[in-house]
Amino acid sequence: MKQKLFFIGLGIFFVAAGVAHYTHQGPILQFILSCVAVIFVAGFLGKATESVAHYAGERVGGFLNATFGNAAELIIAIILIKDAVNGKPQLFEMVKASITGSIIGNLLLVLGLSVLLGGIKFKTQRYNVMLAGHNASLMLLAVIALFIPAMFFTKLTPGETNTLSLVVAGILIVCYFLWLYFSMVTHKDELADSQVVDEHQEVPWSKGRSILYLVVATVMVALVSEWLVGTVEEFAHLFGLSELFVGAFLIAIIGNAAEHSAAVMLAMKNKIGAAVEIAIGSSLQIALFVAPVLVFISFFMGETMNIVFTVAELVAIGVSVFIAKSISRDGSTNWYEGVLLIAVYLILGIAFFLV
Amino acid sequence: MKQKLFFIGLGIFFVAAGVAHYTHQGPILQFILSCVAVIFVAGFLGKATESVAHYAGERVGGFLNATFGNAAELIIAIILIKDAVNGKPQLFEMVKASITGSIIGNLLLVLGLSVLLGGIKFKTQRYNVMLAGHNASLMLLAVIALFIPAMFFTKLTPGETNTLSLVVAGILIVCYFLWLYFSMVTHKDELADSQVVDEHQEVPWSKGRSILYLVVATVMVALVSEWLVGTVEEFAHLFGLSELFVGAFLIAIIGNAAEHSAAVMLAMKNKIGAAVEIAIGSSLQIALFVAPVLVFISFFMGETMNIVFTVAELVAIGVSVFIAKSISRDGSTNWYEGVLLIAVYLILGIAFFLV
Amino acid sequence: MKQKLFFIGLGIFFVAAGVAHYTHQGPILQFILSCVAVIFVAGFLGKATESVAHYAGERVGGFLNATFGNAAELIIAIILIKDAVNGKPQLFEMVKASITGSIIGNLLLVLGLSVLLGGIKFKTQRYNVMLAGHNASLMLLAVIALFIPAMFFTKLTPGETNTLSLVVAGILIVCYFLWLYFSMVTHKDELADSQVVDEHQEVPWSKGRSILYLVVATVMVALVSEWLVGTVEEFAHLFGLSELFVGAFLIAIIGNAAEHSAAVMLAMKNKIGAAVEIAIGSSLQIALFVAPVLVFISFFMGETMNIVFTVAELVAIGVSVFIAKSISRDGSTNWYEGVLLIAVYLILGIAFFLV
Repeated sequence: MKQKLFFIGLGIFFVAAGVAHYTHQGPILQFILSCVAVIFVAGFLGKATESVAHYAGERVGGFLNATFGNAAELIIAIILIKDAVNGKPQLFEMVKASITGSIIGNLLLVLGLSVLLGGIKFKTQRYNVMLAGHNASLMLLAVIALFIPAMFFTKLTPGETNTLSLVVAGILIVCYFLWLYFSMVTHKDELADSQVVDEHQEVPWSKGRSILYLVVATVMVALVSEWLVGTVEEFAHLFGLSELFVGAFLIAIIGNAAEHSAAVMLAMKNKIGAAVEIAIGSSLQIALFVAPVLVFISFFMGETMNIVFTVAELVAIGVSVFIAKSISRDGSTNWYEGVLLIAVYLILGIAFFLV
Repeated sequence: MKQKLFFIGLGIFFVAAGVAHYTHQGPILQFILSCVAVIFVAGFLGKATESVAHYAGERVGGFLNATFGNAAELIIAIILIKDAVNGKPQLFEMVKASITGSIIGNLLLVLGLSVLLGGIKFKTQRYNVMLAGHNASLMLLAVIALFIPAMFFTKLTPGETNTLSLVVAGILIVCYFLWLYFSMVTHKDELADSQVVDEHQEVPWSKGRSILYLVVATVMVALVSEWLVGTVEEFAHLFGLSELFVGAFLIAIIGNAAEHSAAVMLAMKNKIGAAVEIAIGSSLQIALFVAPVLVFISFFMGETMNIVFTVAELVAIGVSVFIAKSISRDGSTNWYEGVLLIAVYLILGIAFFLV
Repeated sequence: MKQKLFFIGLGIFFVAAGVAHYTHQGPILQFILSCVAVIFVAGFLGKATESVAHYAGERVGGFLNATFGNAAELIIAIILIKDAVNGKPQLFEMVKASITGSIIGNLLLVLGLSVLLGGIKFKTQRYNVMLAGHNASLMLLAVIALFIPAMFFTKLTPGETNTLSLVVAGILIVCYFLWLYFSMVTHKDELADSQVVDEHQEVPWSKGRSILYLVVATVMVALVSEWLVGTVEEFAHLFGLSELFVGAFLIAIIGNAAEHSAAVMLAMKNKIGAAVEIAIGSSLQIALFVAPVLVFISFFMGETMNIVFTVAELVAIGVSVFIAKSISRDGSTNWYEGVLLIAVYLILGIAFFLV
């Protein structure tokens, strides 16, 4: 019954937001409808992920969620790059700002809220400590890969910078696929969660239907996110917000709505392993796969987007990785660690807002 | 008998140093008398802390010691800020230098000497590993909170910098109080030291008297510290030392005399948990509570002291936190780890001395 | 029989490379002969180390290997410094580049290949976790000691920079000897490897002969390295490579051939503890002993080489230490961690190549 009502609400607001978007209604109406719709579709995605996770295990479920969540961001970024190549090079900066925002949003806000809300309900939540260590090393690789081009930037010609960007992007993509091979094949068992899965848990959907719903929900999230992103920009300009702040915070928060709701929901069911996989896994996927793929896509479109980030962006990514590493490393979390993550997010937010 | 002699010495030198200070004797006489007095009052504070720790547990005892020790520094800083607001803005730099010196002095010198001397007597000393992890994350928060304003400084107006300073200060104070709530209420047991307390240990004073002595000793330390700080400045100028070196090293070493003697004394009795709580706890309290409170005090006095530290200060705080994190993280210490901490302190000391 | 053939090949190519070097043959012939010779002498050194390690334990064997391996580098550096003092100050930069290259080559390439190839054969390899923690803290000390002079450099006179360099060098040498005392005397047992040594393992040589061979092999490696370094420079100029790239990558890779082959060979026999000791131990010895000793040698020769490294060098050393720390910290390794180390090495390599 409850579920039926949910699906009715989902249908109504999804259609309404779409109609408002394609018939170009006023930005305020579009914004409100999209916001409500995003809550419903994100909830739908969260339920579907949880159901898939029930069949596939927490880690694979979390990985699928992160991947489907990032698919939306990848599509949006490709559209921006197409425009950037066709005479609007400043959009490259917008793409990098949204990559930055997505990484720090996942590491600080998504992880922070999951750990905080999960920790208020359960005193200490644990997950695989070996996975935590490998996540930390991978995050460090991502920081190093973004840091080195920026450090050598001033001594290189634009052509050399593009070469360096492509080589680094290639190395990251290879590392990402080897990581999938490592974590899903050769060391699958070592990285599995030791938490006892409650076998008697109620599962609403069959395996096939869960996967179908996961795909459908992802597509819906991608669509609603794009509608919302469109209105947000108008909104931002109304309130005099900078492009950097909009790209790195507003768009990132909304674009990650799916990861948000799914991760928090799982953490509150004491499945912190899946929540961490979504939050950290998603930011790793952005840094090690989505960003490098975008470099190659821009190269094939005829104008390479280098991976030289601004100092502010590098600082934001660097401090996010260090605090997330420090907190996640021991494989156990509590509410106060969520507070620390959110505190760093707020400090970064106010700094970006004022710049 | 031995105790009686100690109290006689304490009384004599405390009074003598006070008389020399208020009757404006020559700086050399004042300096020598204050130095001897500081040894006695710090010893008194150490004994009182140990006695309170016997009743309240190592962590609470260490926390009380750190708090009373920092009360002195807070009072001195407020006096400096009052002067800074009334036409001597360069004193803001002196306040920040002494905050820096206090953080690195506690993390490197106090912790280093405790670990070294405790480690010479006991092969391996252990303390709560979960506390070590949380201390590390809190130190990192402090570094991030000081680092970000300095990074964005050049792109902000003075007004924006003050806003950022106040917001960051507010976030740190909230985090500090939530940390007290976390560590003293919700997760008290998880952070307690597992070391077996020797119940048959001789305790000189009753519970009430221990607390009274703790308060009295703190006041005496504050007074003697102030007298000594006054003479040290004259001394420093005689020997041609820079204000930065005086603020960050000389004043900090003397101002932390109480933490010093108490922490080392406890470490040599194999109570490394309490020593760590004093050393790391004290620097956390400075970074997360004292410094932010000073920002608000300056704001209410009419001229906000921003929290933009110099590059040299940030480097000093950053490297101190990283080496202290690296060493304390595993919850066990040995003499060589003390050597490493002191080595970094010496390197920083010579660099600040030469600048 | 197999061993006899090996010694015949070793003799032939060692003599041939020597003849080609001293009779000034063409660079291509010299290069090929030296390359083949280096493979033989490095293999010889590896076997000798393994044999000594059998008698002395993994850690001492690894330490001896690292020391003998670095002896060669120390000799080459002293020759360069002699020339630098006699009117070619730019050679000081070459010395620092080779120090940098040696540190990152050991931490990333030697360790990375050992971990990767050992990890392909054995799913998880473990070594002493307390040693891993101390190695991490020592690496951090090295980074701090190189970082601080560079940070304060612009505010110091050349004379003050030299003073700072000498003091820092002195502190590092003291820390290095105290580390030897700590790890070989006071805490020897805590740092020993818990791996069960296979007593039935075939040992080719007696204790005395093993030590003799270790010394002989080291001398041969030093000679062949020098011959090879000579030809490599000519080669590099033919292909238009920068001095920085040659110093930090080509010379370092060849100069560390001995550590390379020995470490990889041991890792593939599941003696990862010895491999780590060679790789990390060797880079620690370079940073904490070889580099400081070179500062003092230059001082006694009449012109102090300061320890101010370039930004590119500091970045390279810093990121190498952070990724190596992150990976080695937990005392266990697997093939993917080797991939990460090599990935960072490749990123640094391409960046240095392009500069």
